[in-house]
Amino acid sequence: VKPVDLENLDPIFKPKNMAVIGVSLKNPLFPGTIIYNKNLHEYPVNVYAVNERGGKIEGNPVYSKLEDIPAELDLAVLIIKAKYVPAALRNCGEAGVKCCIVVSGGFAEMGANGKKLEDELIEISNQYSLPFMGPNCIGIHSNYVDTFILPSERLATPFPGNVAVVSQSGGVLIDQILSKFYERQIGVAAAASIGNKALINEITLLNYFDKISEVDTIVFYNEGFKQNAGKAFIQLAQTSKKDIILLKGGKSKFGAQAAKSHTAAIATNFNLISSSFKQAGIIEAITEVELVTFTKAISFGLSGIPNGNIAILSISGGHAVLAADLCAYYKLNLVKLTDEQRQILKDNLNPSAAEIASFDNPIDLTGSVIDKDIEDCLELLLSFDSIEGIVILLVPYVPTITMQIGRRLSNIVRNSTIKKPVVAYLPWLAIYGIIIKGLELGKSIPVAHTVEEAIQMMHSLYLKGLKNKKKN
Amino acid sequence: VKPVDLENLDPIFKPKNMAVIGVSLKNPLFPGTIIYNKNLHEYPVNVYAVNERGGKIEGNPVYSKLEDIPAELDLAVLIIKAKYVPAALRNCGEAGVKCCIVVSGGFAEMGANGKKLEDELIEISNQYSLPFMGPNCIGIHSNYVDTFILPSERLATPFPGNVAVVSQSGGVLIDQILSKFYERQIGVAAAASIGNKALINEITLLNYFDKISEVDTIVFYNEGFKQNAGKAFIQLAQTSKKDIILLKGGKSKFGAQAAKSHTAAIATNFNLISSSFKQAGIIEAITEVELVTFTKAISFGLSGIPNGNIAILSISGGHAVLAADLCAYYKLNLVKLTDEQRQILKDNLNPSAAEIASFDNPIDLTGSVIDKDIEDCLELLLSFDSIEGIVILLVPYVPTITMQIGRRLSNIVRNSTIKKPVVAYLPWLAIYGIIIKGLELGKSIPVAHTVEEAIQMMHSLYLKGLKNKKKN
Repeated sequence: VKPVDLENLDPIFKPKNMAVIGVSLKNPLFPGTIIYNKNLHEYPVNVYAVNERGGKIEGNPVYSKLEDIPAELDLAVLIIKAKYVPAALRNCGEAGVKCCIVVSGGFAEMGANGKKLEDELIEISNQYSLPFMGPNCIGIHSNYVDTFILPSERLATPFPGNVAVVSQSGGVLIDQILSKFYERQIGVAAAASIGNKALINEITLLNYFDKISEVDTIVFYNEGFKQNAGKAFIQLAQTSKKDIILLKGGKSKFGAQAAKSHTAAIATNFNLISSSFKQAGIIEAITEVELVTFTKAISFGLSGIPNGNIAILSISGGHAVLAADLCAYYKLNLVKLTDEQRQILKDNLNPSAAEIASFDNPIDLTGSVIDKDIEDCLELLLSFDSIEGIVILLVPYVPTITMQIGRRLSNIVRNSTIKKPVVAYLPWLAIYGIIIKGLELGKSIPVAHTVEEAIQMMHSLYLKGLKNKKKN
Repeated sequence: VKPVDLENLDPIFKPKNMAVIGVSLKNPLFPGTIIYNKNLHEYPVNVYAVNERGGKIEGNPVYSKLEDIPAELDLAVLIIKAKYVPAALRNCGEAGVKCCIVVSGGFAEMGANGKKLEDELIEISNQYSLPFMGPNCIGIHSNYVDTFILPSERLATPFPGNVAVVSQSGGVLIDQILSKFYERQIGVAAAASIGNKALINEITLLNYFDKISEVDTIVFYNEGFKQNAGKAFIQLAQTSKKDIILLKGGKSKFGAQAAKSHTAAIATNFNLISSSFKQAGIIEAITEVELVTFTKAISFGLSGIPNGNIAILSISGGHAVLAADLCAYYKLNLVKLTDEQRQILKDNLNPSAAEIASFDNPIDLTGSVIDKDIEDCLELLLSFDSIEGIVILLVPYVPTITMQIGRRLSNIVRNSTIKKPVVAYLPWLAIYGIIIKGLELGKSIPVAHTVEEAIQMMHSLYLKGLKNKKKN
């Protein structure tokens, strides 16, 4: 038997027709019923409910046999007791279903007997050339379909966008990644919880998303690779055309123990794997917050800054101090400006600000500026060759700064012939929404919620720059 | 001349009558006019506008002389050109004003001549026994008055509460501290920007807030102490009955340079001062985010955990892994549970969860729980002697968990005879507002927005515990 072909996963992420095998006719909070109703009412996919007893759910037919469904099925979601899964999977193969997601738990994560059952699934999959995701996963989300076994109204559904997410943990995927992406308006093309990753794993999905034009940035949460999979993943990452961001769970002694009982992940020498990631151009996030800020900056398509040479442009002295304190830790270098450059900056500032501003880097224009001062300063900094990237620290309560400052700075960046990454700090509060929207127009300047997050964004561009540095 | 008495600052923070010296009759965005209008319309204080030309602002009288004001003035805010400040301050002394805030810049921060002018202010202050804050500051905020020179509609006004904030930087105070306190609903009793701190400084305010019953937690942002002031501050902190949290800016090489041009702060050996802080029981935050999470936990009045012995209670395996990874860095110890304790936990869980849950610490009850399972587990963990504090990782999308889970867990903590700190992780999104409000009822369980912030909260209680450990 030839191993199943895992190249084309479109039937999983962009299905036209889908069956949910295992719905409850009575309990609307039964996971299969949640998936059925959610897709019926909220997603473009045509969805069919399957339960051997037949009947109806809220007036819609429940099919007792897969063969009775009047459509060619791209995808079947299996959410039945583990012991019934092999027969159902075989049934999907017979019926010509193109891909499956096995949500059910009770496989390798439960010990030797479960492992045997999981191996049986792989055998069936090869026999029918039927790729499946899982088992023991919560499924996938895309613009076409959502198989997360949880009610939509309890989830923060992400905005559509150019990021793909692959997570070993369903909880971390939904709550730690998608909720936080929603909060910072990071757009998602597809998200997958791969569970026990019997067949479809990080490698399969990196390979798939690498070829999908809708995806520019691929984000992973991983608690450990199976035998040889880590090496293969790193090799594939090296040749990938997309930006790859990864957060590794279970790095510490306590964490590795927890990962072992969670996903049976094998403890790895973290320093070793971390340096392999870097060599492969993988942008590694160390914390959950870094994962979000890195993804925001990288998904804006900002270019890398291989030498970490930056300028900080502030209108508050204290913010400049806080930002400067973070530079060494995040491997960023505050470029020393020449006397001539400092003079040019000063000459372009309004007289009352020029008198009290500081033109050391970090540059503090003070609260005496108007919009035009910040625009001019940004334009000049873009033109200074020694500077690779610019962090703007924008406190929005100075009365002489207008609500248009965001759009005005965004215009400078988009209209400039000099392409350098610019990121901004501004508190993500509802009252500053107009400025945030202005800055982020056309994906020009990503906005960070804390000074540290702004510096983290630049750090991610430094890590991105290292990859291109190696390639050149 | 006897030095001015700085003990009673009530006239600054709780004034009945206040004058704003330096309003514009024409420009509503002139700082003095902003302060006048803001207090007139938004705060209980009676406010009087002063401009030598007299006239009216929006129909309200402008007094040409301080003596014409028909009230006994507790506070005068001076916001006129630096060279006119000494005469105006003397005038306040003659008129019997009790305290002043000098907002005007152009003093010691501008070099030798400015320093001379500042010394003149101190002389006048001593002569009339007239304490003043500043110069070169943005003033204060309390429930009675707000002298921040910025329009209210541009600021996130904090909720009333038991925290006092003292900052060397006005920008950091308003934007980094108060905006973030607002976002996490940390209540503020008083906030002060001390600017050049010619007279009123960190020591004066620590001494004042130590005696004020409304204040339990005192938060500082500092970029450097003047000669001997650091030592005196640390000595006073040692004997303080309140919890003190401090963030130091200008710790790194770049940061110290930036602080020097911002507030002429003198570079200090950071490791040295850091260990002195710890010895004095000062809870030092290393980042802006720690400042917020520490203040949230500490202002809830949670007790310290001197040995850092904690339990983590999760319903998501991935979250447990992320939390465990953070423990070593934050000096927390995941207590090893005895076989008997694990058995008790298991026996109290519903059968389907008990089958798949993990009772290693971190404890992962899995998504198969109902409210009662989490309640029971929390109650048992509170009763285990080896555990000093508990972190609950609560993912809110499991359909069997109700919107009442917050209140239910809060009840357990408040009704328990065993007083141990409990903190929770739950994303601070609007849709989870009911659960957040439930957890935080009666200041029982503070809610953190990220797993790391929850662990940071416990870390602050570990640092708090060290102080009490020393005292015993």
